[in-house]
Amino acid sequence: MNLKVNKNRLWQSLMQMAEIGPGKHGGSCRLALTDVDIESRNLFKRWASEAGCCFRLDSMGNLFARREGENPDVAPIIMGSHLDTQPCGGRFDGVLGVLGALEILRVLQENNIKTEHPLEIAVWMNEEGARFSPAMMGSGVFSGVFKESEIYSHKDINGISVEQALHRSNQLGNEPCKSFPIKAYYELHIEQGPVLELNNKTIGVVTGAQGISWSHVTLNGQSAHAGTTPMNYRKDPVIGMARIVKGLQKIIKEQEGALYTIGRIESQPASINSVASKVFFTLDLRHGDDATLNKLQQEFKNLVSETCAAEGLTNTIKDIWQAPAISFDKNCISKVKAATEHLGYSYQKIISGAGHDACQIASVAPVSMIFIPCEGGLSHNEAESISPEDAAAGADVLLNAVLESAVIN
Amino acid sequence: MNLKVNKNRLWQSLMQMAEIGPGKHGGSCRLALTDVDIESRNLFKRWASEAGCCFRLDSMGNLFARREGENPDVAPIIMGSHLDTQPCGGRFDGVLGVLGALEILRVLQENNIKTEHPLEIAVWMNEEGARFSPAMMGSGVFSGVFKESEIYSHKDINGISVEQALHRSNQLGNEPCKSFPIKAYYELHIEQGPVLELNNKTIGVVTGAQGISWSHVTLNGQSAHAGTTPMNYRKDPVIGMARIVKGLQKIIKEQEGALYTIGRIESQPASINSVASKVFFTLDLRHGDDATLNKLQQEFKNLVSETCAAEGLTNTIKDIWQAPAISFDKNCISKVKAATEHLGYSYQKIISGAGHDACQIASVAPVSMIFIPCEGGLSHNEAESISPEDAAAGADVLLNAVLESAVIN
Repeated sequence: MNLKVNKNRLWQSLMQMAEIGPGKHGGSCRLALTDVDIESRNLFKRWASEAGCCFRLDSMGNLFARREGENPDVAPIIMGSHLDTQPCGGRFDGVLGVLGALEILRVLQENNIKTEHPLEIAVWMNEEGARFSPAMMGSGVFSGVFKESEIYSHKDINGISVEQALHRSNQLGNEPCKSFPIKAYYELHIEQGPVLELNNKTIGVVTGAQGISWSHVTLNGQSAHAGTTPMNYRKDPVIGMARIVKGLQKIIKEQEGALYTIGRIESQPASINSVASKVFFTLDLRHGDDATLNKLQQEFKNLVSETCAAEGLTNTIKDIWQAPAISFDKNCISKVKAATEHLGYSYQKIISGAGHDACQIASVAPVSMIFIPCEGGLSHNEAESISPEDAAAGADVLLNAVLESAVIN
Repeated sequence: MNLKVNKNRLWQSLMQMAEIGPGKHGGSCRLALTDVDIESRNLFKRWASEAGCCFRLDSMGNLFARREGENPDVAPIIMGSHLDTQPCGGRFDGVLGVLGALEILRVLQENNIKTEHPLEIAVWMNEEGARFSPAMMGSGVFSGVFKESEIYSHKDINGISVEQALHRSNQLGNEPCKSFPIKAYYELHIEQGPVLELNNKTIGVVTGAQGISWSHVTLNGQSAHAGTTPMNYRKDPVIGMARIVKGLQKIIKEQEGALYTIGRIESQPASINSVASKVFFTLDLRHGDDATLNKLQQEFKNLVSETCAAEGLTNTIKDIWQAPAISFDKNCISKVKAATEHLGYSYQKIISGAGHDACQIASVAPVSMIFIPCEGGLSHNEAESISPEDAAAGADVLLNAVLESAVIN
């Protein structure tokens, strides 16, 4: 069998959904649990209802649309993502995963295909973290990564708590928010990076998510007069910092798949005619393998020590956050890969650089993801752009991977 | 003749003066035209009066103590510096130049030495620029570098203008503040840098002051997701900045006497998990020769262009201030050098890295300066420290250079 989705119907649904909470520059603005977010959920519910679904809402506002299977006693296959967006978000981040899943139920309905396992579409609450911190909130509580009572107290900038917002928007459901047996979870998403486009691939078979380590680094030198202090008498942390950047370039280049970002730099006392006494910078270090990430961290620390010794500086490095790498389920990954090959789409294996609801669900269920290219890798931006063909290709893969898991009778 | 100053008397005067407006950590705090600044002037006037001086005060509060010469029709030799200090200033910055000059008049008086030319000690108003901006204010108006009416309107942090402060402190003198014929101007000062100490020299024969250029530099890249953007796809201004620092190190190393300082660095949007879109930094570039300074500036601009081209960045460089190099008077320099050699003190030629009243006076009179070492090059700090021996050596050189200019009858 070589079932495909309806490209035009999927695209029209994406375009229609984007009109709810329209952005000023062609994107969408639907912060979690705002009126427009609820409007988007209502539109989704109308469509899913027409596709034969019934609904459950849990105590974190996670919405599940269920298409029954032939066997009521077996665990469902879940597809999902989110409908909330960044304040100046694009039309596809999250939305593609929900409406792609809807398109699959539509195809099954019109082809009168029944599955052994129930199929559900999960619409996770506040994936973006733009209104309430942290991100991946609904899926995080569902997976037990976050504690519901604690999360309830988090407030938006107007002082409205998550719990209040759930009440006001009628999204505080009766179901307790906790994980239940799931046969497999598949999430279709735009890549939010440029790799597939650069490599001219239609599908990214996502094998996991990067491990991340965040550090705060301070180099301490000696403030000195810019006019009276000879170069070789200085202890200049700016020079130390430049050497560290150069050293990091080399370390990262030699390690396949490694990424580093120094996003924030500040010097003190920040005077044009004084040698700086301090330079503060942040380090974001990533790799798909935890052991390699640890090795890179150690190499960075050695680099800082050696540089400071050479430049007469001292340093402090604070490791402020670490997220382990996530490996998705081998069986789910192979179903996505098999579906892609079967359909004849070009693909590559890829590790997700961004966080997704799937990363939370991976701790309680077998998971994989399907990426499609987005133009220039741009996301979290109203100009976010994908092609209808790639959207349909991603949904085709989702459809076939899900059917492999769900068992057609 | 091999006349020398009285080391102990000079040191005691320095220590006594430092008790006026004492700092909390052994230094002094005498902001321009405050009560303690006036108290220091009064002590100086008492001492200078005892050494046979009469006084003039000009409309910028510059105080001149005059010891008449044999010939009333010839131009005076002026020695001078300032008595005001930084808020947490040392005991010697400026004060040594005034009290060293006083010591010379004392020596001449007790030895009953008469000179053909009159000798004057100038106490310049607000050299530090700590209460009123800019620095070197009194000598600047005297030399025509600043305009008096404009400077009068500058205010301190309490909203008191220079003119008001001159009135209130009774330092608005009858003499118009403008230059008059000066045979030679000598200023004794601490080096405020580590060069003499490092080279184990007692005297710095100051040949001029560095040219300075200040620039604001912005490197523009592209903000991107730290997790989804491959290293080779980034336009990271942090990497560009690090390459520029490395390149500058090379340029400066190859140019004898060149200094550069990047004192202020800031990245935008300053997010730990985003590649920076911009890096702003300042450049302070110095050299004792203007043509060389211009060449260095051009090399820096080429470096920025080449780096940006290689890293996919754009840039803007704003040249915000430039001060030309100052060459002191050959005749005055050779008198300082001859006096030093005659006295047998170790010395080296040196270019001043800091600004001094002498740098302003150089535009209206023949000028040179005499530096002595200060511990660790530390200045503008209460811990500023010199030895009584070096202080006396500097005053010895001042004495002999002045006598060469003033002509003993």
